Amino acid sequence: MIYQQQLRIPGPTPLPERVIRAASKPMIDHRGPEFAELLADVTAGAKRVFETGNDLLVLTASGSGGLESAIANLVSPGDRVVAALCGNFGERFAGMAAAYGAQVVRLEAEWGQPVEPADLAEVLAANPDARVVLLTHNETSTGVSNGLDRLVRVAHDAGRIVAVDGVSSVSSMRIGVDELGVDVAVSASQKGWMAPPGIAFVTVNERAWALSEQCRSPRFYFDWRQAKKNAENGSTPWTPAVSVLYAVQEGIRMMEEEGLERVYARHRRLADATEAGLAALGFGLYAAEGYRSATVTSALPMPGLEVSALRKLLRARYGVVIAGGQGKMTGKMIRVGHLGAVTDGDVVQVLWSIERALEELDIAPADGRAMAAAAPHLAEETAATPVH
Amino acid sequence: MIYQQQLRIPGPTPLPERVIRAASKPMIDHRGPEFAELLADVTAGAKRVFETGNDLLVLTASGSGGLESAIANLVSPGDRVVAALCGNFGERFAGMAAAYGAQVVRLEAEWGQPVEPADLAEVLAANPDARVVLLTHNETSTGVSNGLDRLVRVAHDAGRIVAVDGVSSVSSMRIGVDELGVDVAVSASQKGWMAPPGIAFVTVNERAWALSEQCRSPRFYFDWRQAKKNAENGSTPWTPAVSVLYAVQEGIRMMEEEGLERVYARHRRLADATEAGLAALGFGLYAAEGYRSATVTSALPMPGLEVSALRKLLRARYGVVIAGGQGKMTGKMIRVGHLGAVTDGDVVQVLWSIERALEELDIAPADGRAMAAAAPHLAEETAATPVH
Repeated sequence: MIYQQQLRIPGPTPLPERVIRAASKPMIDHRGPEFAELLADVTAGAKRVFETGNDLLVLTASGSGGLESAIANLVSPGDRVVAALCGNFGERFAGMAAAYGAQVVRLEAEWGQPVEPADLAEVLAANPDARVVLLTHNETSTGVSNGLDRLVRVAHDAGRIVAVDGVSSVSSMRIGVDELGVDVAVSASQKGWMAPPGIAFVTVNERAWALSEQCRSPRFYFDWRQAKKNAENGSTPWTPAVSVLYAVQEGIRMMEEEGLERVYARHRRLADATEAGLAALGFGLYAAEGYRSATVTSALPMPGLEVSALRKLLRARYGVVIAGGQGKMTGKMIRVGHLGAVTDGDVVQVLWSIERALEELDIAPADGRAMAAAAPHLAEETAATPVH
Repeated sequence: MIYQQQLRIPGPTPLPERVIRAASKPMIDHRGPEFAELLADVTAGAKRVFETGNDLLVLTASGSGGLESAIANLVSPGDRVVAALCGNFGERFAGMAAAYGAQVVRLEAEWGQPVEPADLAEVLAANPDARVVLLTHNETSTGVSNGLDRLVRVAHDAGRIVAVDGVSSVSSMRIGVDELGVDVAVSASQKGWMAPPGIAFVTVNERAWALSEQCRSPRFYFDWRQAKKNAENGSTPWTPAVSVLYAVQEGIRMMEEEGLERVYARHRRLADATEAGLAALGFGLYAAEGYRSATVTSALPMPGLEVSALRKLLRARYGVVIAGGQGKMTGKMIRVGHLGAVTDGDVVQVLWSIERALEELDIAPADGRAMAAAAPHLAEETAATPVH
């Protein structure tokens, strides 16, 4: 009997009981004072997480909708756009630009590798008319975290505007929008924010606003101007996902109770433990060292292991749900999510389950080596993790 | 002390306790078997409500996003489109088409009046190249229900494709998509479906699919082809609002327990009671007789009544939240929603509260005439309304 699933995919993430209760409030008038207060509070809280004084727009959509809003408001048909990508979600962002009629210049890093700032500089030099650069902070499909600071600096040195996919990073990994000068950053409620899917956040600075004014792409639902104008009156242009916003409000509250720095440290620590445990079991860590994500660990199976068999067994016997590969890595990789409401004990449980499952699949005996490898990363902070 | 708000706006609507509990389930993998089952069940249930064998697509967006998907998939830049409108939401639909570069031919009925089929026939004859006609089933801003069957027939007789805004009608008023041959119909979770906002439904028939294949508008997040392809594999192209879908699933279950015919009869009866009560109090019913909506009643204030004062008093003293006017009717109208989880007793409470508030505002003494006028409409069925 599985009493509680261990949802260890890189989003949607498990909902803390406090978040579920917050999302269970009675419905309210989305044009009334209660909603104005909710929107203002969530907006202010999300700005603290993004670390920005820029406008922060709240859209009712998943992260992809937030990304599309960046394209619809910044990219006109025929524009040249540089898409610096290293995985499936970078492909998606680039695909959106192409769908809006942009000439997309692809700078593609090998999967598992980050985008190199020098390569970006070269591509930008060769494409002086490309005003917008699409970047991925954390590439969920490969478990690679790009060195965002250097990429943004290269783009800004070349006078470009950056739109950053921070869907699976922001709130789990520090982004520091104003410190880096990120022009547009996007995240979504079902990741580190610990809320159900349905809300996307988009930060927009003055440079991005100025470019958006010249944009000739069709936009209505995702029109930033409408979102901004309505937010000033305490509402959204279209009916918002009220319940998800209540959840986000509570999620932010919990993150701030824990302390954002500790939230980020916890994610890094759990990533280190997961990496160590999987490596000890014989998996090949897929993401390049130094660029391994704090929110999702990707790993290649050892000889003889069928990824689908492992995932099925984990789900059925242990209630542990992990992700497989995406795009060209479908069926060839596991991805273990450790973002949002995840504790040291959860990682222990997942590693233990994987080790046991490998024994059942006749890959290797369960001798406790995953835990032994992970333990040093977990020991220090476990006692201090706050109870929510 | 207000213990429970009476949310009597035309959506979002109150959430039944069963729906709240359903939406409170733990999060799941949106690419896993639990989600595939949820999506299939909601899709099948929604098809029964729309009464269609057409494809039914589930989008994570509010109703406006569903409407925009109709434009993005059917209307190419430069296309002529006929928008038959009679209020603010018809304006919105037309505005979307304009945003996508269509030449919009507006057939505008006076607010409070329905669109006349003869007028539509005339406009279509004058615009033989307009392939798509935008219709509003229930115009939420004016409380007018258009005679959808005749409008669809006129459009089809002229060989056009209709896209119907059924956001605030479907699930509260019968639409019968296949019987009428509606090419595209849109609704949204926060209306009669009794769920929080965040999910839009779009039905698409063969003719609409054929037109969409030729469409040159940019589309990605709202691309119907992606939604259909993914649904065949039990998922959605972008992360879906899982919790809202659980809510919708329970909402549909409750509607079917009550019986759709009885749901529709209840909405009509509550509308009749609300109209009778408001008229007895001296309000001027705004929508033309014979076209008054089953989901929202619009009414003009009697001399001396400030709408904003009434709304404030109702909210503060009685916990009753009603809507005001929209667009050019802002501040000049009240709108009382009676859709979704609304019972006879709720209407009684609302009318009683309005009557009392009018006395407090020195408009008229509270002598029970609203209830006296409403009672005949309520009496017959009250005892039989199922307990949820």
